[in-house]
Amino acid sequence: PPSPLQPPGIPLAPCRSFSNNKIQVELDESSGVAMMKLKSPPVNSLSLELLTEFAIGLEKLENNRACRGVIITSAVPKIFSSGLDITEMCGKSMEHYTEFWRAVQEMWLRLYGSSMVTVAAVNGSSPAGGCLVALSCDYRIMAENPKFSIGLNEAQLGIVAPFWFKDTFVNVVGHRIAERSLQLGSLHPAPEAHKLGLVDELVPEEKLMEKAAAVMAQWLALPDHARQLTKTMMRKAVVDRLVAHREEDIKNFISFVSKESIQKSLRMYMEMLKKRK
Amino acid sequence: PPSPLQPPGIPLAPCRSFSNNKIQVELDESSGVAMMKLKSPPVNSLSLELLTEFAIGLEKLENNRACRGVIITSAVPKIFSSGLDITEMCGKSMEHYTEFWRAVQEMWLRLYGSSMVTVAAVNGSSPAGGCLVALSCDYRIMAENPKFSIGLNEAQLGIVAPFWFKDTFVNVVGHRIAERSLQLGSLHPAPEAHKLGLVDELVPEEKLMEKAAAVMAQWLALPDHARQLTKTMMRKAVVDRLVAHREEDIKNFISFVSKESIQKSLRMYMEMLKKRK
Amino acid sequence: PPSPLQPPGIPLAPCRSFSNNKIQVELDESSGVAMMKLKSPPVNSLSLELLTEFAIGLEKLENNRACRGVIITSAVPKIFSSGLDITEMCGKSMEHYTEFWRAVQEMWLRLYGSSMVTVAAVNGSSPAGGCLVALSCDYRIMAENPKFSIGLNEAQLGIVAPFWFKDTFVNVVGHRIAERSLQLGSLHPAPEAHKLGLVDELVPEEKLMEKAAAVMAQWLALPDHARQLTKTMMRKAVVDRLVAHREEDIKNFISFVSKESIQKSLRMYMEMLKKRK
Repeated sequence: PPSPLQPPGIPLAPCRSFSNNKIQVELDESSGVAMMKLKSPPVNSLSLELLTEFAIGLEKLENNRACRGVIITSAVPKIFSSGLDITEMCGKSMEHYTEFWRAVQEMWLRLYGSSMVTVAAVNGSSPAGGCLVALSCDYRIMAENPKFSIGLNEAQLGIVAPFWFKDTFVNVVGHRIAERSLQLGSLHPAPEAHKLGLVDELVPEEKLMEKAAAVMAQWLALPDHARQLTKTMMRKAVVDRLVAHREEDIKNFISFVSKESIQKSLRMYMEMLKKRK
Repeated sequence: PPSPLQPPGIPLAPCRSFSNNKIQVELDESSGVAMMKLKSPPVNSLSLELLTEFAIGLEKLENNRACRGVIITSAVPKIFSSGLDITEMCGKSMEHYTEFWRAVQEMWLRLYGSSMVTVAAVNGSSPAGGCLVALSCDYRIMAENPKFSIGLNEAQLGIVAPFWFKDTFVNVVGHRIAERSLQLGSLHPAPEAHKLGLVDELVPEEKLMEKAAAVMAQWLALPDHARQLTKTMMRKAVVDRLVAHREEDIKNFISFVSKESIQKSLRMYMEMLKKRK
Repeated sequence: PPSPLQPPGIPLAPCRSFSNNKIQVELDESSGVAMMKLKSPPVNSLSLELLTEFAIGLEKLENNRACRGVIITSAVPKIFSSGLDITEMCGKSMEHYTEFWRAVQEMWLRLYGSSMVTVAAVNGSSPAGGCLVALSCDYRIMAENPKFSIGLNEAQLGIVAPFWFKDTFVNVVGHRIAERSLQLGSLHPAPEAHKLGLVDELVPEEKLMEKAAAVMAQWLALPDHARQLTKTMMRKAVVDRLVAHREEDIKNFISFVSKESIQKSLRMYMEMLKKRK
């Protein structure tokens, strides 16, 4: 199915680097590796704008033959991404909720289904949607800082991770660890996340980018075509499940977010965040 | 679907504690935590009577708004539960086998699908059906005693664990460990069970209840609704599979247990147990 | 469905030992254990001939009531099996490709679905199809030699492991480890393979057969019928998936192997192998 982000028949121009409001992309054509940095201070909230730029950025790279892999990281200190932007879910119209949720889905479909090698260089905390971004990559390296934590902590906020967040999580850590972590809404400090298999490797913060480049080189040593078909084979069932239930998933989100009780707890949560600053 | 245990439209009265022949329940309304003790000496065999009381007890607690979690343990020293009561499977009528197997299913459907937080405090050995009870909880703590063992050891008795015992097991320990353990009918001593992920934690016997209460408090710190929906999302596929094949599963059980060869080996097994006493 | 290897209605004669060109089988009737050795030097390539003899050998043992378990090992030093024979995929006719691929499927269906206890004594390296043979057994013991490696390394050769290789792998090591290992086409040295759960146990090379016999004895201590039904329950979904898509899988293989680009890279690979000798 054609992407909603790109009219069919109009090829994207090749690009070396581009920067939008919320993401910054640099492609090293000699290695075929792009660096994609989230730069939406203070906490890289996944707003509609960031999500759209993210998905378009991935699509541009995907269509660029010079690009074979992308390292995803944060340009903001101490935080990888704080997850979905709660202001997009508060006091907005049905149309807005629909557009927002479709953008969340689109970002994930592009990232989880990417034919490029995707490496997450998790250089800060990464709750909820931020964790989903990391889980959707082929490999996760995290800064060895116990103050940084990662997890699908939706249950802590009184909300439920969508089924495709859960499927992505189960594919990484298995059913049991996912069941416990999702029910408790756990945020795992980096060492624990590594022990659970949520991230593949911990490295000292100053070596994170170097390590990400080394891992990427290892993955790119493989011929693309076989690796891509293998990745598709592993991830197809979970991708297809969202594709088959996409509209239903949007309806679920709207019906959930429209509840007064949920609006109330989201407002309380936002006020708490404001006070913290 | 309405439960066969409870006529629709007749609400159960709230209760603080109740005791039947085979189970004993105490609810602490201040914490919202019920303690449910199996007390059917000598080995807490899961007889028709115990299973029925167990399922009704769970249903009462489920319908009691003051109850948010239940700790399941044994009132009998050294044994959590010895599993399904073999006397219920020996020399009885088809009607009895049907009623018995439906009660096994009902207990599991109530426990595995419970919206309460369920913690198993495994204070003794727990073979076969006893292991199923523990596996169906949200968290398993076992006394750190290598003489206590746990496992789905059906194959040792020449019988096959039903598919939903297997599904529950796979969801906890993964496919490989389940395949090996089920084929060998392994009873894992507590330390090994912990290593395999069959139980989540080992504690000295005298600290078991204290630890169970602490774990329960941690789980109850989460808002109920999101946690419950998350649990349902994780367990629905496996619950639905039994619901869809429930009558077939009963027929399988009856056809299996009616075989003369099986009756013979169950009788031999019972005689061996009697001699041991 | 009747096997293509054996006309219906003609029972195979019981046998103690038999030897074909490529495999050698010895049955110890006192223990009920057969030893099946691959002996196709220099590297036990899974040629059409070897695969056919392998499947027929398994079928003979399966139909022999005196045989309850089989230990699979190599008669060639330092190599368990190098995997599918590339010469069978190079410059041959469509008919040949069809016959070859059907033989690969048949070998796996017989081995993965065997009602006997199957133990792999991995006494050398075991890439690709060789790894599949080991993965399809009930238990894997590998010589504790870090020079020996094992893995589904197809992606390294620019080809994709078939879905049922993948399913078999996932059932042993779980989704995450399989995803990474298959994408990277990893060959894991014995110690790493053990850590990942790809093999169950490492033993010094000289103790391999002794250990295999001991493990076999442990598995044969169980009553056959319950163990067999349990094994079928665990493996049925994956076996059924190939059975349902068998012709499609053959067509996929032919269409893949007929590509000029693939023929070219297979020829290059073969020449590289020849130069190595």
